[in-house]
Amino acid sequence: MPPALPLPALLLIDLQAAIDHPVWRKYGERNNPPAEHNVTDLLAVWRQRGWPIYHIRHDSLEPASPYQPHQPGNEFKPFAAPHAGETVIAKQTNSAFIGTTLESTLRAAGHDTLVVCGVITNNSVEATVRMAGNLGFKTYLAADACYTFPRLDWSGRLWTADEVHSLSLANLHGEYCRVLDTCEILQVFGTGYDN
Amino acid sequence: MPPALPLPALLLIDLQAAIDHPVWRKYGERNNPPAEHNVTDLLAVWRQRGWPIYHIRHDSLEPASPYQPHQPGNEFKPFAAPHAGETVIAKQTNSAFIGTTLESTLRAAGHDTLVVCGVITNNSVEATVRMAGNLGFKTYLAADACYTFPRLDWSGRLWTADEVHSLSLANLHGEYCRVLDTCEILQVFGTGYDN
Repeated sequence: MPPALPLPALLLIDLQAAIDHPVWRKYGERNNPPAEHNVTDLLAVWRQRGWPIYHIRHDSLEPASPYQPHQPGNEFKPFAAPHAGETVIAKQTNSAFIGTTLESTLRAAGHDTLVVCGVITNNSVEATVRMAGNLGFKTYLAADACYTFPRLDWSGRLWTADEVHSLSLANLHGEYCRVLDTCEILQVFGTGYDN
Repeated sequence: MPPALPLPALLLIDLQAAIDHPVWRKYGERNNPPAEHNVTDLLAVWRQRGWPIYHIRHDSLEPASPYQPHQPGNEFKPFAAPHAGETVIAKQTNSAFIGTTLESTLRAAGHDTLVVCGVITNNSVEATVRMAGNLGFKTYLAADACYTFPRLDWSGRLWTADEVHSLSLANLHGEYCRVLDTCEILQVFGTGYDN
């Protein structure tokens, strides 16, 4: 028998109702409308194969945040809601690895390969992927299963959501993770991984 | 007597000879030529006041990296070379907090306020500042004491060093740190901190 392949863990970052709050759209609309479809595809494959799924939930401590616990914005979006038996990890900062049991849970389970998706690309997703790579996890980022919003840069120039997203991915690829689209990730974890 | 103010720790990131290697200039020149001058100003003030200084040195494990130990690229740039008694912390990833004693050393010394400068803005500086903020350190980033290089984004578009730098600062400010110029940082830690 060939040696067992490591089971890739799917990390879904901050896919909660609060991401639809108007505060995010101050400078315009998000990019990447198919992101929900691609997250749904990843979840379907992971569930069909019985692979590990980690739902990261942002429980903001900031009084004005729509991500505060115990109110509607904190709820998972229906398409990304956890099923019974899937792990939910609450965080209070941007990175899912700080102040949480994520690293110890992944290591205890032997999950050294991660596939990350969620929102927003250049904030919690990027903070989590930078740490995942630096902590030694083999990390894949599903580019088309993330999205972000337009942003004013430090010089006052407005960048579109696509531009912000694309520079974030370029900062991450090859240095902290491998950036691929969902269909490419499903190919990487296809033949040989099928069970 | 008023309560003692916390001593701000100055973190200098990867200011080593390897940053002058041509590999960095594949897509053009760096931004922010006065960065060395501003780092020198910060160091002079910190040394004059006897405040804590942490020199972060990148000891790359990658065979092709100019940052590998025991060769000229690994040496600190002369303007940023440690003086006797200043702390040097070696790292092997982008974030100065991973695989190092930086967090425990800062906490043991009671240094909960950080001023960060160095290179490159959107890589080791950004990875370190994101973690510093998320770990709960009160973090300032000296915008004009950092620099970066042009970068191709994920869509293949080339961004100038100033553009890459400006979006990185915008991603960090207010979320992970407070971004200020050197003269503003010296004002923040001026009156009341003078000793």
